[in-house]
Formats: sequence, C-alpha cells, structure tokens
Amino acid sequence: MFTPIRNVKIYEQVIEQIQGMILDGKLKKGDKLPSERDLAEQLNVSRTSVREALRSLEVIGLIECRQGEGNFVKERFENNLIEPLSIIFLLEDRNPIEILELRKIIEIETAYLAAKRITDEEIKDLKDIVERLKASKDEAESAKIDKEFHYRIAKSSGNFLIVNILNILSSLMDRYILEARKIILLTGENSEYLLNQHENIYTALSDRNPDMASLYMKKHFEMIERSIENK
Amino acid sequence: MFTPIRNVKIYEQVIEQIQGMILDGKLKKGDKLPSERDLAEQLNVSRTSVREALRSLEVIGLIECRQGEGNFVKERFENNLIEPLSIIFLLEDRNPIEILELRKIIEIETAYLAAKRITDEEIKDLKDIVERLKASKDEAESAKIDKEFHYRIAKSSGNFLIVNILNILSSLMDRYILEARKIILLTGENSEYLLNQHENIYTALSDRNPDMASLYMKKHFEMIERSIENK
Repeated sequence: MFTPIRNVKIYEQVIEQIQGMILDGKLKKGDKLPSERDLAEQLNVSRTSVREALRSLEVIGLIECRQGEGNFVKERFENNLIEPLSIIFLLEDRNPIEILELRKIIEIETAYLAAKRITDEEIKDLKDIVERLKASKDEAESAKIDKEFHYRIAKSSGNFLIVNILNILSSLMDRYILEARKIILLTGENSEYLLNQHENIYTALSDRNPDMASLYMKKHFEMIERSIENK
Repeated sequence: MFTPIRNVKIYEQVIEQIQGMILDGKLKKGDKLPSERDLAEQLNVSRTSVREALRSLEVIGLIECRQGEGNFVKERFENNLIEPLSIIFLLEDRNPIEILELRKIIEIETAYLAAKRITDEEIKDLKDIVERLKASKDEAESAKIDKEFHYRIAKSSGNFLIVNILNILSSLMDRYILEARKIILLTGENSEYLLNQHENIYTALSDRNPDMASLYMKKHFEMIERSIENK
C-alpha cells in the first residue's frame, strides 16, 4: 500500500526548518536569523520562498524585520495572535457574550492565583493603579487604567498563558463589546460602585486572601454581565 | 507638532484591506478571493506584495490556496493559531505546568456550562465515547478517545472561544507534557480509576447537574496534577 504524500509547500518547509531551529534551541529570543540569501542557499530553495516564509513568521509575530539589519527572533511577544482569532470570531458569527463568559471564568481563578503569588512590589504597583483610577476625571483615561488593573492581576498570577489569553480576550472585547464601562455607567451602576469593586479586589489581593480576591472578582463580572444584559 | 508616521509595509496594507473586506461582511466563509492579478491592480501594488500577504493569511489559517482554483476564505478554522503560541511558549522558557493550570481552570467551568447546555444528541455521543474508552485495550487508542471526550464537553459548552482555546492548550500539552495519561497510569492511579472518573463526569452531564459535573472535572484534574507532580 502507498502512504499518501503530504502536500507541503516550499515556504511551509522553510517555516518548519526555522521552527525546528527554535525548538532545538539554536535560535533564541532576539537572535538574528541567517540572511535571506544564506537561507535560500542552505535550504536549496528560491529566495522568493524564503521571503514568503519570513513574511509569514513576521505576521504571526515570531520574528521582526529591522530595515537594513536583517531578521530577528522577537524579544517580546505580547499582543500577537490577536487579529486571527478576532477575524475568525467574526467569520463564525459568534455572540460577543461568549468573550465575557470566558473572561469571567479565567479572571475569577486568576484573582485566586494572584492573591497567592503577588509580590510586595506588585501590590504597591496595584495600589498606585487604584489611586490613579480614583483620581481620574476622564472616562477614556479611566477605561485605560481599568484595563491596566486587570492586566496587572493577570501578570501577578505568574501564568504566562493566562496573561496571553486574557490579552486576546481583552482585545476581542474592545472590538465586540464596545465601551463596556460606558454601558455599565449608563445602567444604574455608578462609577463610585465600579471604583469600590476595584478597591475590594485590590484589598483582597494585598491581604493575600485568595478566596476573597476571587469572590470580589466574581461580583465584579456579575455586575458587568448584568449591565450588558440590561442595556 | 508632527504626528509620527506609522511605518506600514505594503504587504501589511494588503492584509488590512482583506481583513477590512471580512469585517465589512464582503468576504464570508468559503468565499473566493479576487485573483492575485486583480488584487494587485485594484490595490495598485506589486504581485509580490499580494503574494506575500496571501501566504501570511494562509499561514495564519484564514485562507487556503486551492491549486488551480485560487484563494478562498476557509470554511473551518479549527486547529490554527497553535504553532505560534507553542513556539512562543518555548522561547519564553515557561513551565509546562502552567498549561495544566489554565486547562484545569477552564475545564471545570466548561463542565458546569456543558451540563446546562448539552443536547440529548450530545449526551448520546458522549455515552458512545465512554463505551469506546471502556472497550479500548490499546493505550494509544485510549489516549485519543480521552482527548475526544474532553473536546466534546467543550463543544457542549456552546462557547466557541472555549473550544478554540482548549484546543490550543491541548496541543501545547501534547508537545510539553508528553503522554500525560502514561504518567498517570505509572504513578499508582490505575486505568480503571481513570475510566471511573470519566464515567462520573459523563453521568453528571447526562443528569444535567452542573455542580456535580464541575466537581468531578475538578477531581479529575486534581488527580492529573498529583500524578504529574509525583512522577
């Protein structure tokens, strides 16, 4: 019997080779890749195929092309992967409430983990964020600080995947649940109440109380859900 | 004052245009894209830039190129996005236990949602999977059925993002926590116990009991964690 031959395109093979170098530890964060010419020669493929592969890796967010310097493995990978999932979500015609549902699930437990793992330094930073939220008179500014607050808690969970996936979900929310804060502020809940919820979460985290941290995060998301359902 | 000029590459502009057509609803799942030549003419860019953009969208998993037919928006988007996160996870040198930690968080609540939303048809399918798991004598086969079991529960949650993100986490586990089942079977817990856990989860789902479903899923993941910690 014959084994079906897998139809792998040339540029895909180039990508696989580069991924292989990363998996083998031959390429690390910030490293410079071989030049297009060298890659083409070493892999015995056309420079067009190499360029297609490099472009794709750039779009995926794994490498960056610095003009005149060459191609490098990225140092920071935050905020990638976002567009594809966002586009797919739209093509699949999904209900934006799903984004909130998953965020709620993850953030409640993230608060629990963060309360166990948060450092003194991180507590101080979080306190500053709450103070800035209190002082802010501008709603656009408050929305930004609010997002920063949730991001810092994700970071304090110490779980890289949680940070990445909450980033993706936060971007999806920005796109599909526009101005969640505005909706909340317009539906009976006032900004003082919203601020109070953030303060409660902060206090539980600074007390390193996982149960209270997740409880207050739960109440926070229940309020968001209620506001969006009632809008 | 001057506004900094954003350095957007030609192929990125092509991608943005195509994404824009999707966002505007002009391109839907399965639709054929304009030809490379037409795109180049309409956007007034070189065919090389168009080809680079299309390749990137293909790598991201948004479009597929059918030889001799042209480029199409994909019909199904499952199992994309996977490689980038996997490579990034490696480059960041993270601890594989983070994958399990996040899977546990999501799957416990997924079981809860699934118990509320599962259809009669899905209960029947899940029962078949448990029966196949019971009958399987081959560990590789059992591992496959086990994965199918978790995938079906994610589907029954009705949340598209949960299915997608658990798929990504499951692939990451395959790569970094090799043969989790084997580890479990070697560390004192036997295959009957593992089977029993799956049966309990199934029963709670077929009873449409959210609390029991999430409780049994929790016990299941606690056992997995215990086994991996003790290995």
